[in-house]
Amino acid sequence: MSDYDLHHHGDREVGPGLVDLAVNVRLPRPPAWLRDELASALDSLAAYPSTVDAVQAVAGRHGRPSSEVLVTAGAAEAFTLLASAFRPRHAVVVHPQFTEPEAALRAAGHAVSRVILTEADGFVLDPALVPAEADLVFVGNPTNPTSVLHPAPALLSLARPGRLLVVDEAFLDAIPGEAESLASGFPGVVVLRSLTKTWGLAGLRAGYVLASADVVERLRAVQVPWSVSTLAGVATVACCRPSAVEEAEKLAIAAESDREFLVSGLVAAGVPVLGDPRGPFVLVRVPDGASLRARLREAGYAVRRGDTFPGLGPDHLRLAVRDRATTDAFLATLREVS
Amino acid sequence: MSDYDLHHHGDREVGPGLVDLAVNVRLPRPPAWLRDELASALDSLAAYPSTVDAVQAVAGRHGRPSSEVLVTAGAAEAFTLLASAFRPRHAVVVHPQFTEPEAALRAAGHAVSRVILTEADGFVLDPALVPAEADLVFVGNPTNPTSVLHPAPALLSLARPGRLLVVDEAFLDAIPGEAESLASGFPGVVVLRSLTKTWGLAGLRAGYVLASADVVERLRAVQVPWSVSTLAGVATVACCRPSAVEEAEKLAIAAESDREFLVSGLVAAGVPVLGDPRGPFVLVRVPDGASLRARLREAGYAVRRGDTFPGLGPDHLRLAVRDRATTDAFLATLREVS
Repeated sequence: MSDYDLHHHGDREVGPGLVDLAVNVRLPRPPAWLRDELASALDSLAAYPSTVDAVQAVAGRHGRPSSEVLVTAGAAEAFTLLASAFRPRHAVVVHPQFTEPEAALRAAGHAVSRVILTEADGFVLDPALVPAEADLVFVGNPTNPTSVLHPAPALLSLARPGRLLVVDEAFLDAIPGEAESLASGFPGVVVLRSLTKTWGLAGLRAGYVLASADVVERLRAVQVPWSVSTLAGVATVACCRPSAVEEAEKLAIAAESDREFLVSGLVAAGVPVLGDPRGPFVLVRVPDGASLRARLREAGYAVRRGDTFPGLGPDHLRLAVRDRATTDAFLATLREVS
Repeated sequence: MSDYDLHHHGDREVGPGLVDLAVNVRLPRPPAWLRDELASALDSLAAYPSTVDAVQAVAGRHGRPSSEVLVTAGAAEAFTLLASAFRPRHAVVVHPQFTEPEAALRAAGHAVSRVILTEADGFVLDPALVPAEADLVFVGNPTNPTSVLHPAPALLSLARPGRLLVVDEAFLDAIPGEAESLASGFPGVVVLRSLTKTWGLAGLRAGYVLASADVVERLRAVQVPWSVSTLAGVATVACCRPSAVEEAEKLAIAAESDREFLVSGLVAAGVPVLGDPRGPFVLVRVPDGASLRARLREAGYAVRRGDTFPGLGPDHLRLAVRDRATTDAFLATLREVS
């Protein structure tokens, strides 16, 4: 069905004793204030979950009506809901990007066309590459794994009547000021968000969809009942509070500085960073990448292989942005094993 | 599409200040040993969830190979997976029963035929009612809301080549000795299990599927990635331990005695219990049921309306089995408002 292993993810590359630069979750665990709220909710698990409060919290955070919000079990659930609720005649995925949207479309029996952005062009979005007849288009912003942040006008130029433009903003809360976000609402645009990267909640499954009320209604109609757990709902409410949004902004600014530190260290080590990275990870291309990855692994570092992303190959590696101490130690090891 | 509100559930009938006889979750909160394990897992939420340990635990508990186990976000996810993975030409749901299987089939675009078991026959399963051409058959055992436990041989007489027989055993761990369970493995039989009723975990979403390896593989192919949270995985492992299975058996025996207490109290109050109830809830029929339900609600008791179940009407009410003190107080109120 597919030439790439679309279900390969960074979590398969980590292992005991390895420093994890493969997974893009940014915190090693949820912050204490969030952990405490989750712990308090354990006594209310006997009741069936409800997303009423979480929907209202998301709506408030993004200034949208509740009818334009669907809370989901992570952004991953949203891919499956979109693939189930709609019957695209011509679905397009802009690659390289996270592979689950394409996997979900294929699992639902839809054909998928790929638009491949190239390294030569810095993985910049060229709207002209998307066929006019595309009625469902998936783009990531900032894009995993290239870390490229597409300008909002370029994205909006892809929206048109008769087409759903799905922008996966799973990492957008890691961009200071949430620049280029389309979360505030544009016709024909579906925005997917995740809470798991910024808040160390990948294990909890928490995310949401922002879309027009009719799209939300169609997605809700095929959503598994109660698919969002009580704890995911509690986390969603907590992470939409102004204090949390403010904390995310500080984390985003810190991540930017940590990324610049990583990028200059890589350049100094003779490893050019591709594109113009804006997210909490960077993409590099190195000679004999598979072998370097194996050597890094032996030396205690897990990095994300690039060859499972359409448009990339075995010499591409994705590196998570970590704190300076971790990055320094990684760069020293990189120089040793290169 | 449907003449009944298939998405109506008991959780919509509870409310602040009401004693809940509407929802079939049996514990008011998870037991302390389980709560503590969940609390410990909160610090590992940053990692993506994995069901490897949970699958192994379920396999061990039921003596089946791991390839015959799929861990799911509650039994509800399994309905959607079955509806997505298979394209039945003739799907049959045996009613009255939990309505989400039919809702999931309809949401996936499948036509559904209903086989209605009747009150006159005590809601006993008559295999002859299921059309020979049915290639996907859903039955609940014990059945929600009738509380009837179908004999394993009657169920097995429905299994045949070219047909998937799906037995929803969401409440079977509430039956002493897990009588009539098909969990040990029969050709063409898919068994669904839930952990949420016995362990007070409805908010967490934890369940699993037992089926042949090829069916499990097809369901897994359409499952949302990471749909089972880390905490649901931890709960699954914990609830499959021999000590937990033993505790469930004790709870089942206690529930049986509590049910007999409720049944004799209802009979004494002139409210006949329908069928031969074996689960942790009973079905009754009363004159002017909608009005009685409203009066009970005013008096502080939420009971489950029956008229959203195909085959039942407004005079049918489902009552959860609770401890004797709660039942006594309920019966007193029932006599007052009748």
